[in-house]
Formats: sequence, structure tokens, C-alpha cells
Amino acid sequence: MTESLQIIGHLRSPFREKFLVPRQPGLIADLRSELHVASAFAREEFWRGLEGFSHLWLLWRFHLDARRGGAQRPTVRPPRLGGEERVGVFASRSGFRPNSLGLSVVALRGRRRDGDTLVLELGGADLVDGTPIVDVKPYLPWADALPEARGGFAPAAPEAALEVSFAEPARRALAARAESQPELEGLLRDLLALDPHPAWDRPFSSPQTQTRDESGTSRAYGARLFDFDLRWIRRDHCVEVLDLVPLTEDKR
Amino acid sequence: MTESLQIIGHLRSPFREKFLVPRQPGLIADLRSELHVASAFAREEFWRGLEGFSHLWLLWRFHLDARRGGAQRPTVRPPRLGGEERVGVFASRSGFRPNSLGLSVVALRGRRRDGDTLVLELGGADLVDGTPIVDVKPYLPWADALPEARGGFAPAAPEAALEVSFAEPARRALAARAESQPELEGLLRDLLALDPHPAWDRPFSSPQTQTRDESGTSRAYGARLFDFDLRWIRRDHCVEVLDLVPLTEDKR
Repeated sequence: MTESLQIIGHLRSPFREKFLVPRQPGLIADLRSELHVASAFAREEFWRGLEGFSHLWLLWRFHLDARRGGAQRPTVRPPRLGGEERVGVFASRSGFRPNSLGLSVVALRGRRRDGDTLVLELGGADLVDGTPIVDVKPYLPWADALPEARGGFAPAAPEAALEVSFAEPARRALAARAESQPELEGLLRDLLALDPHPAWDRPFSSPQTQTRDESGTSRAYGARLFDFDLRWIRRDHCVEVLDLVPLTEDKR
Repeated sequence: MTESLQIIGHLRSPFREKFLVPRQPGLIADLRSELHVASAFAREEFWRGLEGFSHLWLLWRFHLDARRGGAQRPTVRPPRLGGEERVGVFASRSGFRPNSLGLSVVALRGRRRDGDTLVLELGGADLVDGTPIVDVKPYLPWADALPEARGGFAPAAPEAALEVSFAEPARRALAARAESQPELEGLLRDLLALDPHPAWDRPFSSPQTQTRDESGTSRAYGARLFDFDLRWIRRDHCVEVLDLVPLTEDKR
């Protein structure tokens, strides 16, 4: 049991960091991602018969959360409980867990060759770009689907609860991408409506961007997505997208 | 990505070897198993909140199938396809796969302390006794249950297709265990009806036990289960249990 894990491939997704990644797969149907298979497993034979399955399991490493050294904490604070209450790591899907293994079901949309690389085209992944994949298995509905299972402190999917609007600079940036990324506005709306904001806040500039007026607390956020830095403000149940600022090459 | 995996605990089940283990979990409702948690994770805190979930994912190592050295074969021959046709390892749930990782959903029946050991009481596991568990996660029905998924070459659960009867020595052995294991006859019936026989045969004595008469081919089998060696004969769609032979201590 001491051997290390082989990497089957790497996941390519729009998410350049954890912030904005949906907290489970399948919450946003239009999300596309790709598995770029490592050369050791790129022969078609390894994947023969997979095309008959509509969905796959990905087993992967939480490579950003993995604690290198340091003791394993027995509990985590899931966003679902407001980031305050603690539950055991084994009662959560948090990445701060022994072995840092993640599990996600994704839709299989296709398979193609990209030069020497074998690429699986996926739908619905909840993974950061570059996530190392350590196994791929077919989803077996008669064994894996238990719609009547009881889901503890997370009994139902989180609701898309926030209202999303776009400021003028954001509108212009979307218009400039209308041809290459026609689905972008809808995707941003879906991602932000899911309320990705952590209980501990994360302003993109200084803490002074937090202001309080009669309508409550405003807070500014930023996250890297595709090739831009998305910037927005949240106030109560409303999100206003301010701008999509192109990333310089070294930040992608 | 080179760190080795920590063992969260070991699965205790009636299966002393792979033969007779159901090919997916949940096929036999009455099957009981236990996760004996490793001392590093035996504090209650690690498991707080898990009791609210009806089902768990186990991630585990196929410790009996893991190839130590030797090249990874790109294809396997799933029992579902008669053991003849080959599919890619990533289109199968076979244990002969890179990283030897397994994935099973099990029912959570309870949790208890057994001296210093923390024990999770489970239902429906498809694992050999002693299987090392490398992660436990709650089952989230809204994310994990996709009853409409398309299941490729394994679109539905295997049917319990064989008729099971008991010879006199087997009846006597069951009668002697009627008090301690009242569910045993039903369990044996369920396990054997699922047709666990590999396409390549596996007689418990010599190949000469294979005989051919007017009713077809008979074949004798044996497998270790609980504290006995189960012996039976298969002919066409019928299984006759011959005997339950107690195992000597060193074979358990």
C-alpha cells in the first residue's frame, strides 16, 4: 500500500483557481471541461466501450488543498453550514481530507485526438484547471444511483439564490466575446447565482473596498476564469459584475 | 503526487476470497460488513455528522488484484460480456486497473466502539475481507444519483438467474448454524443465484470433477466464506450446494 498514484491525465477547465468552482458537479449543465489523457494511457484500447456510457466517475487529487506535512484536522466547516459549524472530514466532501482524493460524476460528451493527445470531452465538472485525475470509471446507474438516499446536512442541491446583473464595462467585455464565447453571460450568471462566496470574505483589492450604506454591506470579489479576472460586487442577495479584466500571460 | 495512500481502515466481510463476492454493491440487501477504522482516525470527531447520511462511498484498494510490477494491460474481459469480449480498463470497474482503486456505495447501518476500535456497520458491500479503505465520503443523492444515466454494456443489474438447492450434508450444516446465523441459507441462495462462476472454471478439486452426462456439463466449485469452505455443483441453470466444510484456523 505504499506505491504512489499514477496520473491518468489532467482536467482542463475554465477555473484558474478554486473560487467560483461549483461545489458539486452537475450543478451547471453548460459547463464544459476536458480530460487530457496522459501518454501512457492514450491508446484507444484503454477506452474501448466507454462511448456506451453517458456518465463517468472521475477520481482525482485535490492538488491545491493537499496538506504537505502538517497534521490532518479531524473536522471541517462546510460552506453548506455557513462556514461556522464543524463536521467530521469523513462526513464531508471537503478536499482537506486524508489522501486528498476527490470523486465527481461528469457527463461524457465525446472523445477526440488532438495531435498525440487523447481528449475526453466532458460536461459538468467541478474541478480546477490542471487537476490530476487518478481514475476514470463508467457510471453504473443500477449500482450507483440511489435517488432515495438521505443526505444528512446537505439533503438537496444548493439553490441558485442570488440575482446577477452586469455593469457597463462587463457588458462591453461580454459583447466583445459574443462570437467566441456566446454562452459566457449565461455561465457567469449561473456561477454567481450559486453564491460561491466563502463565509470568510475575499476582496480582490484592499479591505477598504468593504463599505456599509443604508442597503447593507457591499463586498468586492475577484476570481480568475478562462483568460480573464472576473470582478464583481455582492450586496445582500444581489451580485453586480463589474468587469472582465484580461489576464497577463503569467497569471493564466 | 508521489505520496503514498493512508489506510483509513479495513473492511471486514464474510468473503475470504474474491470468488462469490457480488460484482457490485447493493445486489444483496442482507449482506453485512464492517469498517474497522484505523487508530489514527478513530476519534469520533472525524465522523461527526455522518449519522445523518443513509449511504456512504468507500474508496478502496483492490489489494488482491494489484499488479506489483508488470505492465498494465489496456483491456479486460468483464464477466458481463461472458469473459470473452475485451473492453478498455477505463470502461470497466475491474480491479486490474492503474492505481487499483475501487469505488462502492454502501448503506450506513450504525457506528459502535469495540474496545479501542471504532466500527462502522455497513450494508451491501462487495468487498473481500481485509480490503484496505482509503477514503469514506457521504453519498449526496442530488449530486451522485443519476438514475437516467446510460450504462453501456452493463445497462442493468445482473439478474439472479440460477436455481439453488441444498444436498443433505449442506442442510445439516445449515441446521447446526440456524441459531447463530439464521440468515445464512437465504444469503447463500442469493449469492449463488447471481451466477458468480467465472467464464474460466475453477473446480475445488481436480479437473476430473467435470463430467458430462445427458443433462449437460456439471462442474464442482468451492469458495471460502465466513468460517467454512462452501462447496457446490453447477449444472446448466441449477446450483446444488453440497456442503459447508469448516475451515481450519490457518485458512480463515
